[in-house]
Amino acid sequence: MSQTFDIAVVGATGTVGETLVQILEERDFPIANLHLLASSESAGHSVPFRGKNVRVREVDEFDFSKVQLVFFAAGPAVTLSFAPRATAAGCSLIDLSGALPAEQAPQVVPEANAQVLAGLKKPFQVSSPSASATTLAVVLAPLRELLDLQRVTLTASLAVSTQGREAVTELARQTAELLNVRPLEPRFFDRQMAFNLLAQVGTPDAQGHTLLEKRLVHELRAVLGQPALKISVTCVQAPVFFGDSFSVTLASARPVDLAAVNAALEAAEGIELVEAGDYPTPVGDAVGQDVVYVGRVRSGVDDPAELNLWLTSDNVRKGAALNAVQVAELLIKDLV
Amino acid sequence: MSQTFDIAVVGATGTVGETLVQILEERDFPIANLHLLASSESAGHSVPFRGKNVRVREVDEFDFSKVQLVFFAAGPAVTLSFAPRATAAGCSLIDLSGALPAEQAPQVVPEANAQVLAGLKKPFQVSSPSASATTLAVVLAPLRELLDLQRVTLTASLAVSTQGREAVTELARQTAELLNVRPLEPRFFDRQMAFNLLAQVGTPDAQGHTLLEKRLVHELRAVLGQPALKISVTCVQAPVFFGDSFSVTLASARPVDLAAVNAALEAAEGIELVEAGDYPTPVGDAVGQDVVYVGRVRSGVDDPAELNLWLTSDNVRKGAALNAVQVAELLIKDLV
Ligand SMILES: NC(=O)c1ccc[n+]([C@@H]2O[C@H](COP(=O)([O-])OP(=O)(O)OC[C@H]3O[C@@H](n4cnc5c(N)ncnc54)[C@H](OP(=O)(O)O)[C@@H]3O)[C@@H](O)[C@H]2O)c1
Ligand SMILES: NC(=O)c1ccc[n+]([C@@H]2O[C@H](COP(=O)([O-])OP(=O)(O)OC[C@H]3O[C@@H](n4cnc5c(N)ncnc54)[C@H](OP(=O)(O)O)[C@@H]3O)[C@@H](O)[C@H]2O)c1
Repeated sequence: MSQTFDIAVVGATGTVGETLVQILEERDFPIANLHLLASSESAGHSVPFRGKNVRVREVDEFDFSKVQLVFFAAGPAVTLSFAPRATAAGCSLIDLSGALPAEQAPQVVPEANAQVLAGLKKPFQVSSPSASATTLAVVLAPLRELLDLQRVTLTASLAVSTQGREAVTELARQTAELLNVRPLEPRFFDRQMAFNLLAQVGTPDAQGHTLLEKRLVHELRAVLGQPALKISVTCVQAPVFFGDSFSVTLASARPVDLAAVNAALEAAEGIELVEAGDYPTPVGDAVGQDVVYVGRVRSGVDDPAELNLWLTSDNVRKGAALNAVQVAELLIKDLV
Repeated sequence: MSQTFDIAVVGATGTVGETLVQILEERDFPIANLHLLASSESAGHSVPFRGKNVRVREVDEFDFSKVQLVFFAAGPAVTLSFAPRATAAGCSLIDLSGALPAEQAPQVVPEANAQVLAGLKKPFQVSSPSASATTLAVVLAPLRELLDLQRVTLTASLAVSTQGREAVTELARQTAELLNVRPLEPRFFDRQMAFNLLAQVGTPDAQGHTLLEKRLVHELRAVLGQPALKISVTCVQAPVFFGDSFSVTLASARPVDLAAVNAALEAAEGIELVEAGDYPTPVGDAVGQDVVYVGRVRSGVDDPAELNLWLTSDNVRKGAALNAVQVAELLIKDLV
């Protein structure tokens, strides 16, 4: 009989956590017992798994020695509170909150840097990067050798679900208010999100960069193993429920061989390249899918050493929950 | 008594045309008689001007010798049909459709290249560039000297109104259908526009660039007077009714002096620079305004020779109708 594991998911009632539980079931992850954890607010609720309703418990009261692996899919504060307890109990962890330093829990995207896992000691600690860094890493990794990458310039148009459940509800509520010509009352966002673009996600530092933008730069460099790669990034909140999109301009050291780029993208894991002339959209393509969609592959109008791409992926699924499960699938071979 | 003019607006019932008529009134343009023209479809309708309802007539039957200046604010086909008739009748024209070659009707944005007008012969022929090129030119012109600009990389998130009235109706209709859980039936757009991003506006050429993107490159170079400027551009259709937004990364030949950039933007005509730490949005700031809003002024995360900006402007007003009227205000001095 093959090995099975006891697993916990912290934040199991959230946008990412619920999808994570679904993916564990879909991919037939070898689970003996699944423990679903959240705050006191939703303790007692239940979440379906393998045809049963699994009761959600409070994370505060959980004994981590009961499991071999825990996914942290709540906020950074929750990870910071409970990760030490988990590792002290000998439990490995995969964190989705970005709370842990890279030295403690390296950022891993299996399509880009799975080899990092081989160097870890038990109990394992791994970070699944931000959904943006994950998506970009999946697409840039197979182009690394081909391009001699000098610079990445990108604008990320993020779905409101990158900010969790409340943000999704708010976009729907604002849209309905506007269509019904009722006065708009922004709550989660500080201004109108419906039919609008918010060019700053989070508070900027003194230089004008947001935490999200700086995190993306650091994570992408780490996962691609290119610590000196120049990256320019603007993160924008778009009135889209699910699916992040990326307008990407890459500067190469030499003229780009478009046929080779297309072939590399076609051959790569985790990518769906759309037909030339077509383009993918978050709603029509990415949502609910296990791949990053790539389209609009083209050189610069005036620069053969430039490569332009449009990417879109399901931020909750491919950008977060699925990436964490893919990491777990690689880890469990050594988890025994 | 000061000089007044007889003026015609072709496409007076359209998104741009209606705003143009409003702006002529607001700015007290010296008009004796205003002739409003459109297709047979809306001939007979009327449009308010100076407290009266002005009857719309069919452009086919119009005698251009009755006016000294005509604005073309219908599609390119309409300009191509009637511009020769207008100029043959001695009538000057300002075209908003992009139909006329630059040698015949140079692209003018008063804040950037008003000097071009001085070289024209009567009857004058001037093009008002695409809304995107106009907005970008207003902001880049006052930075030209300061930056020693090497390259502009930009993602334009365009409002549906850039595609006229039908596109506006379609976004509203699609949104209502989705909120009411009715099946979605795309008509004007070929797929779901509501809560989605369409990464390609128009049909791409064999290299993957759209006409809109190539037009933006040519127009921006022409208006800035920098024919060799490298420009990378992706135009995206966003689910926003009015107001285009631009994520712009500029590469300079030397480290950027941010204080000088802020001072230049502060001092420039046609620009509203928002406070550091804040950012402008199409809905909250740009719509209905006569200026381009600029925010998120910052260097690169890792490159002091890089300047990042976020721009937003009312595509119909500042990007089109107002620019054309500003050109007209400069032309009429020599129109007598
Ligand atoms: N959404 C994305 O696209 C995305 C992508 C990558 C990474 N992430 C990261 O993943 C994490 C979860 O994001 P989300 O979008 O799923 O947020 P969410 O929809 O708001 O869900 C938050 C989850 O955390 C739980 N939680 C909140 N406070 C807690 C506490 N004190 N103790 C235990 N559980 C608590 C919530 O449980 P209750 O039901 O009890 O409140 C809920 O299950 C965040 O760190 C986020 O940055 C999100
Ligand atoms: N919207 C923008 O942001 C923007 C910005 C810059 C430039 N432009 C350009 O400005 C022009 C108008 O755009 P729009 O957005 O205002 O479009 P729109 O809302 O669709 O209006 C089109 C106008 O053109 C008229 N028209 C159509 N076919 C005609 C014909 N055969 N003969 C005479 N008139 C005709 C229409 O009159 P009926 O009522 O009779 O159909 C209507 O007045 C286009 O060339 C567009 O590319 C638009």
